[in-house]
Amino acid sequence: MTRASLSEFELIARYLSRPAAAERSDVVVGNGDDCAVLAPTSGHQLAISVDTSVVDVHFPHDAPPAAIGHRALAVALSDLAAMGARARWCCMALTLPAADPEWLEAFAEGFRELAARSGCELVGGDVTRGALTIGVTVHGELPAGQALRRSGARAGDLVAVTGYPGRAITGLTRWQQGEREAGHPLLEAYLRPEPRLAAGEALRGLASSAIDVSDGLLADLQHVLVASGVGARLDLESLPLATPLRATLELDEIRGRVLNGGDDYELLVTLAESDLAEAQRRLAPLHLPLTPIGRIIEGEGIQGIPPRYLERSGWDHFPETAS
Amino acid sequence: MTRASLSEFELIARYLSRPAAAERSDVVVGNGDDCAVLAPTSGHQLAISVDTSVVDVHFPHDAPPAAIGHRALAVALSDLAAMGARARWCCMALTLPAADPEWLEAFAEGFRELAARSGCELVGGDVTRGALTIGVTVHGELPAGQALRRSGARAGDLVAVTGYPGRAITGLTRWQQGEREAGHPLLEAYLRPEPRLAAGEALRGLASSAIDVSDGLLADLQHVLVASGVGARLDLESLPLATPLRATLELDEIRGRVLNGGDDYELLVTLAESDLAEAQRRLAPLHLPLTPIGRIIEGEGIQGIPPRYLERSGWDHFPETAS
Repeated sequence: MTRASLSEFELIARYLSRPAAAERSDVVVGNGDDCAVLAPTSGHQLAISVDTSVVDVHFPHDAPPAAIGHRALAVALSDLAAMGARARWCCMALTLPAADPEWLEAFAEGFRELAARSGCELVGGDVTRGALTIGVTVHGELPAGQALRRSGARAGDLVAVTGYPGRAITGLTRWQQGEREAGHPLLEAYLRPEPRLAAGEALRGLASSAIDVSDGLLADLQHVLVASGVGARLDLESLPLATPLRATLELDEIRGRVLNGGDDYELLVTLAESDLAEAQRRLAPLHLPLTPIGRIIEGEGIQGIPPRYLERSGWDHFPETAS
Repeated sequence: MTRASLSEFELIARYLSRPAAAERSDVVVGNGDDCAVLAPTSGHQLAISVDTSVVDVHFPHDAPPAAIGHRALAVALSDLAAMGARARWCCMALTLPAADPEWLEAFAEGFRELAARSGCELVGGDVTRGALTIGVTVHGELPAGQALRRSGARAGDLVAVTGYPGRAITGLTRWQQGEREAGHPLLEAYLRPEPRLAAGEALRGLASSAIDVSDGLLADLQHVLVASGVGARLDLESLPLATPLRATLELDEIRGRVLNGGDDYELLVTLAESDLAEAQRRLAPLHLPLTPIGRIIEGEGIQGIPPRYLERSGWDHFPETAS
């Protein structure tokens, strides 16, 4: 953080500095030195993830700046949620084509609002000039040994998902078609995804594996299956179907979006059938449903899904939208 | 780290994954899950810094790829050195215009060689498509309370600098003029700066303040003076002058580069006069001179430097070269 920059960028950096009022005892040195210095929690491990959001690749250039700020942090926090970690600190590497104070203020506000709400203090930053790119490194903490790994799924476990996947891809499609209604629930699902941090923490000790649904449910489930050396049989009838999707789309189309739409940032977990009720009980205060959609089986791959859904799974088949 | 990407970029990510052989007991989960999970050292604090290197802003597009990889990590590690921290873990957010295996292999090799030598394990990464940009977040550890802050300089302290600043800016100028001799010491000073990690650790408990010389000696000293609420009087005659500069440049020009050339990543420290000999003794095994160049005084600003040097201090005056 010692690199100097144009004075306009020094001003920018100030938008992204944490307010002096936000003193936390775990932040020994915040902005203004060569490094941030942080006090980790004794007996805990550190969970770290980095995510880069590039304009017109990961978000539309005309998205509201507050949503761009929120989203850049949310997608990184989602990785902490999928590990069961509590969010603690973040750093932002911001590349900007120009310094537009109005845009920047809204962007910073979107980022900070989620950071504050998540307990994830912005402790470091770097601003450079170039195509709009937001690199976020998030740091969380976990009681030692309690990380929710991708590799823990066992035959007989249920497969379950939080919330209603498929909304974000539908929101993005609407945005691309020109829909701009403020607060539209599908647009919000894409523009302001909510990282499931509280759910991830609540499922620690219950879930045998976890991943966040960023690429699409089938694609992300496949990551878990490979890491765990198992297969899964899904039940098409059990998929949670969001009300705003049911209102406008055919069932077949909705299921395709639930299974293959990315960017939802819901959690996909496996857990013993006997733990399902307790898991649902823990998520109830979050008003977050946890829907069992299938079961882990011996073997490999995903069964129970008609080929027409499998054929379009994953990122490669949504290159323009689900990245 | 859950975001999927084009398969060519998955291949790229593999270049940047740590080898399975490199198991370290402090890396609980490495690549391949939502987060890296790390075991911090008990009783230590965490030092974090992020640096972004953008093509044709922070390095020439035609620089050797191994040097680009080295340099992107070195400039981030230099912030750990300036804090007195021991390097532990790093994450890379890599944005690439295309997948050129040959380029990428050399780039990764340059990055990894320095990472291995510094004990700084690559534990997380993210690859996206766009203009070549390398974002590096580094994590170091410090015994609690022992960070080398910018704010600790006191009137009466000596001001001292490691090594020979001014070489990197001269190397960059030579590169821009077409010099391509492999191993040329001035080109190497720019292309492959050596973060002074061992020196930073060795000076813990001795130096009252520290910063790395990334923007230029005067500009970086000014950061220390402001943070510490003091001034400094430098002695022009004491500046360390690198032999390859003396061989080709006028004294006045050399001094200008020592004072205002950036990108050297030497350490600029303050310390009590009575501690100088011990500090030099500690750096002797590193073959790294520590040269006193002035003294901290009451007040503010920098004295003892003719205005012709002060006028061109800092980044703004080298916009094309010293960024």
